[in-house]
Amino acid sequence: MIHRPLITLLTDFGERGGYTGVMKGVIYTTCPDAVLIDLTHQVMPQQVREGAFLLHITHRYFPPGAVHLAVVDPGVGTARRPLCLDVPGVGRFVGPDNGLFSYIVDAYPAARAYVLANETYFRQPVSPTFHGRDIFAPVATALAGGEPVERIGSAVPVSSLVCLDRLWPRWDSGGRYLEGAVVHIDRFGNLIANLPRASLAGVAPEALARARIVAGGFNLTGIQHTYGAHRPGEAIALFGSSGFLEIARVNGRAAQPYPPETVSPDLGLPVRVIV
Amino acid sequence: MIHRPLITLLTDFGERGGYTGVMKGVIYTTCPDAVLIDLTHQVMPQQVREGAFLLHITHRYFPPGAVHLAVVDPGVGTARRPLCLDVPGVGRFVGPDNGLFSYIVDAYPAARAYVLANETYFRQPVSPTFHGRDIFAPVATALAGGEPVERIGSAVPVSSLVCLDRLWPRWDSGGRYLEGAVVHIDRFGNLIANLPRASLAGVAPEALARARIVAGGFNLTGIQHTYGAHRPGEAIALFGSSGFLEIARVNGRAAQPYPPETVSPDLGLPVRVIV
Amino acid sequence: MIHRPLITLLTDFGERGGYTGVMKGVIYTTCPDAVLIDLTHQVMPQQVREGAFLLHITHRYFPPGAVHLAVVDPGVGTARRPLCLDVPGVGRFVGPDNGLFSYIVDAYPAARAYVLANETYFRQPVSPTFHGRDIFAPVATALAGGEPVERIGSAVPVSSLVCLDRLWPRWDSGGRYLEGAVVHIDRFGNLIANLPRASLAGVAPEALARARIVAGGFNLTGIQHTYGAHRPGEAIALFGSSGFLEIARVNGRAAQPYPPETVSPDLGLPVRVIV
Repeated sequence: MIHRPLITLLTDFGERGGYTGVMKGVIYTTCPDAVLIDLTHQVMPQQVREGAFLLHITHRYFPPGAVHLAVVDPGVGTARRPLCLDVPGVGRFVGPDNGLFSYIVDAYPAARAYVLANETYFRQPVSPTFHGRDIFAPVATALAGGEPVERIGSAVPVSSLVCLDRLWPRWDSGGRYLEGAVVHIDRFGNLIANLPRASLAGVAPEALARARIVAGGFNLTGIQHTYGAHRPGEAIALFGSSGFLEIARVNGRAAQPYPPETVSPDLGLPVRVIV
Repeated sequence: MIHRPLITLLTDFGERGGYTGVMKGVIYTTCPDAVLIDLTHQVMPQQVREGAFLLHITHRYFPPGAVHLAVVDPGVGTARRPLCLDVPGVGRFVGPDNGLFSYIVDAYPAARAYVLANETYFRQPVSPTFHGRDIFAPVATALAGGEPVERIGSAVPVSSLVCLDRLWPRWDSGGRYLEGAVVHIDRFGNLIANLPRASLAGVAPEALARARIVAGGFNLTGIQHTYGAHRPGEAIALFGSSGFLEIARVNGRAAQPYPPETVSPDLGLPVRVIV
Repeated sequence: MIHRPLITLLTDFGERGGYTGVMKGVIYTTCPDAVLIDLTHQVMPQQVREGAFLLHITHRYFPPGAVHLAVVDPGVGTARRPLCLDVPGVGRFVGPDNGLFSYIVDAYPAARAYVLANETYFRQPVSPTFHGRDIFAPVATALAGGEPVERIGSAVPVSSLVCLDRLWPRWDSGGRYLEGAVVHIDRFGNLIANLPRASLAGVAPEALARARIVAGGFNLTGIQHTYGAHRPGEAIALFGSSGFLEIARVNGRAAQPYPPETVSPDLGLPVRVIV
């Protein structure tokens, strides 16, 4: 077994245009031993929140030596900062300072942030519209190859980073319902909310079994265990494989089909668990 | 040259959600030398029959040391069994016992089946909705790494496996027509039927040349050789690159466009060859 | 570090059908050390011009040892020739002689062309509908593995190759406007034209700043620097990350959404820069 630097990629570039191929070319040209893994390139266009969520639920399955290169970057070319987050024992994260790492920062108090200040690590000239190719890919490659983050970036307080609001659901003031929002729609049309199992840890199992889950046109009773035990066409709520509440239609879609590469109207939909 | 374990992946997970990325993370964390090849993640959602067909026509192009990890699994979390098929000289196949390996079992009488009974090979805790991550990926990794299948699973009779009906076309009782069905629609909108060239081996070439091919609104005469020799827009029937009958429209689509990530109404369409 | 042969893939096969998986199987069976990189498999079906453009803007990010396997091949099975282009210091290109390499030939006067004449390098039998699997993938593998191109092909004059017309934009006879066409639509719905920055090199910056860009329903003033500085919903023209003129809608789509796997009506749209 030889050591090969592991880099994951998460973007909203799609597979159509060669943008991801170009980033891989930049990486392999410098580091022919790299192992590249696509987390997804199908983040809805410019949906930083969905990207942040997907990075959160996927990065934990990778070894701590991995470098996670994440580019959902509507503000490319403006003053938003290029960033590396270093989380010892977890991994390193490279991408724009626009909230994309909000869940990572939230999860790991030990995270250290660096603004990518050393332009000698960039590909020149830097395009104002494709920092993925010219800044983030070269920096991720350098990090994966063993370059110390301190040489590439300047330490900044984690508290200075852009952080998304409403990362987590909130109880209404009367403690009657918990409200989150749909942050991702998967290939099966399941609506996945930022409502982790732990956010309902204080609710008794019997109360959960008769809770009402309300989201858009859905009004469901109880949180189920798995898909297969229900009738085709039935809508159910359950905690999915990453521990987040999702609304699914058995052998069907909860989300409506919509043209690809547009943003689903279901993203951001409020989801209430009424207990 | 060093030996690197080869694992292919075939799922209905799409590329949107990070499910395949997570499986790859699980594999690489244990086996950093693995070579992973995506056969496809675009099996229509929960269409076991399409997945079975695609696995059939793709696996044969890989070396016999390969492990084929296949997950189209509408019954995940129910009593359906997790499986490994071992086909000496061909490869190993890991996935749910729901018919996904029907064509493999049919093609290789030497196949041996094992129920994945040894939970020490699983990722714990096992999610009731994502056995791809927690059972199939870890088991495929162990097999690819050299672990004997007998240690991971318990041998069961191949005859006990779930098998899809109508794997192959049938002659009507009068021998007038052979009827199969559309089992896959490719990117070009070609309708591909479970009608292999061999199923018409007994028909004289002259009879094939004037056979009628009827499917939905198509009523075609003769089986052609290739696309390029025909007029743009013309619908033709031919044996495709895997030896199965397909209906194509030259420089166009035979299947109607439909929203992505939904099931095409053309899947399952009966296809008759009238001789 | 060990040397691993690098092969990129660019096709219109999509991700749905296993065609790309099969090509990768053919490659890995012969060359287990290969590194395969997908440039894109989402070239619009049979749109040779879009494939040619995407190959042009992506190949330059790869090391010169790379073999670029490109298959957009509506004429497969007809008399069109199978080809290898060898460009010293840049890379080798394998695919059909149908114009797919027009930009490569145009860019590199040193390119040498070879018709793939030595059938001992092919996979047998050769399917009339899938030369990607049976001719181009095996030949790319042989080249990547070190086989000299002279052994695989017969030299032919580069001038004998099929070349697309209208590779580049043209000035109207009065020098009043430059006209190109949309050759690619990316995931964000940006319309990308075959109008490189250099084609407007003779125009003064002040004139560019007040130029009108007209394409379909768009009538825009001036060429901008990046997306982020403009209002959401605003349509702008700018030179994209590859140096080509594109029309974008900030945080939206310039191109209309259309069903996937069909050809966008926006491809080929004339784009005029009126100075």
